[in-house]
Amino acid sequence: MKIIAVRVTPIAISDPPLLNASGVHEPYALRSIIEVEADNGLIGLGETYGDKPVLDALLHVKDRLKGLSPFDLNGLWQRVVSASLGTTASVASIELDLAPGSREDKKELKIFAGFEVAFLDLQARALGIPVHELLGGAVRRSVPFSAYLFFKFASDVDPSYQPDPWGEALDSAQIVEQARTMIDRYGFGSIKLKAGALDPEHEVACLKALKRAFPDHPLRIDPNANWSLQTSIRMAEHLQGDLEYYEDPTPDLEGMAALHRATGLPLATNMVVTDLAEFRRNIALGAVQIILSDHHYWGGLRATQALAAMCDTFGLGLSMHSNSHLGISLMAMTHIAAAVPNLTYACDTHYPWQADEVLKGGRIPIENGCVTLSDAPGLGVELDYDALGALHERYLRCGISQRNDVAQMRKLKPGWQHVKVRY
Amino acid sequence: MKIIAVRVTPIAISDPPLLNASGVHEPYALRSIIEVEADNGLIGLGETYGDKPVLDALLHVKDRLKGLSPFDLNGLWQRVVSASLGTTASVASIELDLAPGSREDKKELKIFAGFEVAFLDLQARALGIPVHELLGGAVRRSVPFSAYLFFKFASDVDPSYQPDPWGEALDSAQIVEQARTMIDRYGFGSIKLKAGALDPEHEVACLKALKRAFPDHPLRIDPNANWSLQTSIRMAEHLQGDLEYYEDPTPDLEGMAALHRATGLPLATNMVVTDLAEFRRNIALGAVQIILSDHHYWGGLRATQALAAMCDTFGLGLSMHSNSHLGISLMAMTHIAAAVPNLTYACDTHYPWQADEVLKGGRIPIENGCVTLSDAPGLGVELDYDALGALHERYLRCGISQRNDVAQMRKLKPGWQHVKVRY
Repeated sequence: MKIIAVRVTPIAISDPPLLNASGVHEPYALRSIIEVEADNGLIGLGETYGDKPVLDALLHVKDRLKGLSPFDLNGLWQRVVSASLGTTASVASIELDLAPGSREDKKELKIFAGFEVAFLDLQARALGIPVHELLGGAVRRSVPFSAYLFFKFASDVDPSYQPDPWGEALDSAQIVEQARTMIDRYGFGSIKLKAGALDPEHEVACLKALKRAFPDHPLRIDPNANWSLQTSIRMAEHLQGDLEYYEDPTPDLEGMAALHRATGLPLATNMVVTDLAEFRRNIALGAVQIILSDHHYWGGLRATQALAAMCDTFGLGLSMHSNSHLGISLMAMTHIAAAVPNLTYACDTHYPWQADEVLKGGRIPIENGCVTLSDAPGLGVELDYDALGALHERYLRCGISQRNDVAQMRKLKPGWQHVKVRY
Repeated sequence: MKIIAVRVTPIAISDPPLLNASGVHEPYALRSIIEVEADNGLIGLGETYGDKPVLDALLHVKDRLKGLSPFDLNGLWQRVVSASLGTTASVASIELDLAPGSREDKKELKIFAGFEVAFLDLQARALGIPVHELLGGAVRRSVPFSAYLFFKFASDVDPSYQPDPWGEALDSAQIVEQARTMIDRYGFGSIKLKAGALDPEHEVACLKALKRAFPDHPLRIDPNANWSLQTSIRMAEHLQGDLEYYEDPTPDLEGMAALHRATGLPLATNMVVTDLAEFRRNIALGAVQIILSDHHYWGGLRATQALAAMCDTFGLGLSMHSNSHLGISLMAMTHIAAAVPNLTYACDTHYPWQADEVLKGGRIPIENGCVTLSDAPGLGVELDYDALGALHERYLRCGISQRNDVAQMRKLKPGWQHVKVRY
């Protein structure tokens, strides 16, 4: 089996005005849909970032993969490395602190990972088995995700947003209502609140309201490193006993280490342990106890298995991070989560915030808080080329080529500044 | 694809009187040959230890694997764990310090690994691709091994040994002659001297003689933890500059850490970092710089890939350990070594010391110091059932059910004692 063609299609998916530490989500999030076609007619699918630096690199690499076996992941890595991606960025990269996927130093791993998922999908399709089986077998047939709550504006804050049914969520009653809707609709058994957007005391009060409304749901709060160490310690005093884990309240491994020493709370991260060098430093510092994996920037599904083995070795917990994404990414996340025994926390997903889809059959169901695996070959999903074409058309028209939550907030709040530790 | 039958055949292979820290190799080494048969008629092959505790456990587990998919490695692990192997040992296990494969605490990983290789062979055969491709693709098509020298008796020391052409090797001229024969015959580009058997000054003099005779061959010495810390430091003063790495001269992670601090020499081990808990302790202590992997007790080929990722993360080198083995193990070692980019040292192998084989076509060639990969499906080898039957017959007759180098030495040298740190 040899690769004869690789296609990369950028798409724009509608995104609501969700608030975070940098600013606010733009009306569209960008993704790249990857198709890797083999000489036996099979096509493997992948999905990754669609921002211009990543898209340019994907396009730069894709034709170099022709002739490879889809099993040859070492060969894929060599071709990514030899493609000299450092020279491909045609616009200055905007690095969002809260999105490791935007970091330039991860470009090779990101490009590799985008194709690796498609390679694995092809491997599994060639075998007629699901990806979870290829990865070593599902230890759980249903993969739990958490309700991912955001402070947000109503969609009419800017006519560029598609109308969304969620409405504004800025106070505690609105956040509890958002949680209730999400739990009613999807059955989530745990809750994550994206914080770092509003005043910390207010955000903690919202979390306390969630605790009262959902006393049996494990709760997480994620201020995206927008709180100082002092603020993080002060908020921890209010939060003791309420949290499943405390995710990235404050920047830097050293800051997280000091916070853990001061509070004893279990700390989780997708910001300070995002690669192997940081993993190693974290072991020396004892900063973070739970790693939020993300195959999109850790280097794919096999690399996630290696990360899981390292977490097991060093007694760290393992959970999963997400960015705005569609169903191919959701299924890749679900298959790897099913095959990693020590991925014991409910995974993050932005999926309920998206309405679009590029898959035949439309949106993937989340029921009882879980995505359920099938035994269909590969990732178990097929492209709807009409839907893909429409979202690609929208990409060409949307006027966004690179995520910039700061600039979007400036449109809504003139004078908005990107401040690294705001509180 | 489902497993319908599993066969485990113990065999006895002739072994010469090789000296080590415990005593001397017995006339026969024991191995288990594993066949895993799927409902499509394909058979995957594995090879592992044949000592009674391992054999009993393999036999105890094998029928529990029926119905599994050979892709379901998590399911294999669950069935091994649920088989309660602690209850299967029918003789007291003899733990040889120098052979981690004999350690009772590794039984589950050993049993898993024996079957895992056969599962992977089946996976690859089902795909019509070689195991190295299944593992991610060969980064090298020829895998280098090192000349593995032993102090030894002539085979007529005991009529139970098969005649061997190597003769006695106790002094430096004989060791240099052994190296020359091995390099002439197989083309090895590096040399390992098994030590810990004779007086350390004498062994170091032999290594110095090898250095003079083969100045361009990287050299290693392995005293199997039979030297005190003080002796190890004293010998290091003689060895500075001669060694590629200094393998397990002294026991315990703490001892190796003290040795590294005292000498700065790169230390390698297959004795003090043999599992993930020890890996973790080694990171804290900074004791050992090169890990000798061995899929037979680390938990298989996929676990070896995870170990490689951990070595990469923590800046450790990776090489490979061996025990007496035949060609299925040799090919499993070769396929994984080919697919692990950071396995940059020539691997150990006892293969030149064996004369038997269970494979069609007989012994696997080692040329220019390397085993060369083919693109034949799976491990690329097939059983010769006549040869397997003959070696199984020999197993039934040989009178050995568990390796015991101490007892064998006592036959040759009455009064021989097993002393843990002899020098």
